[in-house]
Amino acid sequence: MTFLDEVPWNEHDLVAVVTQDHATGKVLTVAWMNREALAETVKRGEAVYWSRSRKKLWRKGEESGHVQNVREVRLDCDADAILLQVEQVGGIACHTGHERCFFRKLEDGRWVEAEPVLKDPALIYRK
Amino acid sequence: MTFLDEVPWNEHDLVAVVTQDHATGKVLTVAWMNREALAETVKRGEAVYWSRSRKKLWRKGEESGHVQNVREVRLDCDADAILLQVEQVGGIACHTGHERCFFRKLEDGRWVEAEPVLKDPALIYRK
Repeated sequence: MTFLDEVPWNEHDLVAVVTQDHATGKVLTVAWMNREALAETVKRGEAVYWSRSRKKLWRKGEESGHVQNVREVRLDCDADAILLQVEQVGGIACHTGHERCFFRKLEDGRWVEAEPVLKDPALIYRK
Repeated sequence: MTFLDEVPWNEHDLVAVVTQDHATGKVLTVAWMNREALAETVKRGEAVYWSRSRKKLWRKGEESGHVQNVREVRLDCDADAILLQVEQVGGIACHTGHERCFFRKLEDGRWVEAEPVLKDPALIYRK
């Protein structure tokens, strides 16, 4: 029995993963891992997710260079979730070029973009 | 069209919700909301989730008193997730009596309890 066996994998064999910047405390992304992704994340020390849309392992930063170096891995009590503390290389976690995916906030009943695009996505993914 | 229509509800009509302590930045819980829960959260200014196990609205703190006063609501780019910034009444978010659900961390291949129980759950739910 390994730590992988203690994760409550859901009906799709996935677990939700919250990724937080270890320095600023900002929540960067919510993504998913399967067993292989979590094993590889721990082994490499870099975040590896499962892309539900592409249906394959997603080594964060493999195209953008925006790797997430893992500082800590936590498991929650029962809600099927993992929390990563990371160092975000390049300072950009989101494919939109924002620092993080949570750049919209609710104001007076509307979602308002509250954080800037730091880099044009066309420049991030030009490889 | 309201802000509720812009949330990418999943196949179960739910969205994942990450809840963070606005003062400490600690990620407290990961839970789920349906449309009604999000509408009520925004209206009341207190976190209301959807309990997948009990299949009903779960007004956080209704039994424990550990209400979460909502300071900010954010939506992510596409990963089906909401981020709440809250003030955690009572300083305890987890039903286990820990400050938060993420009290276990990975150390040398094992999940280790890294934060204390602040209050006996039997005392929290004695009503």
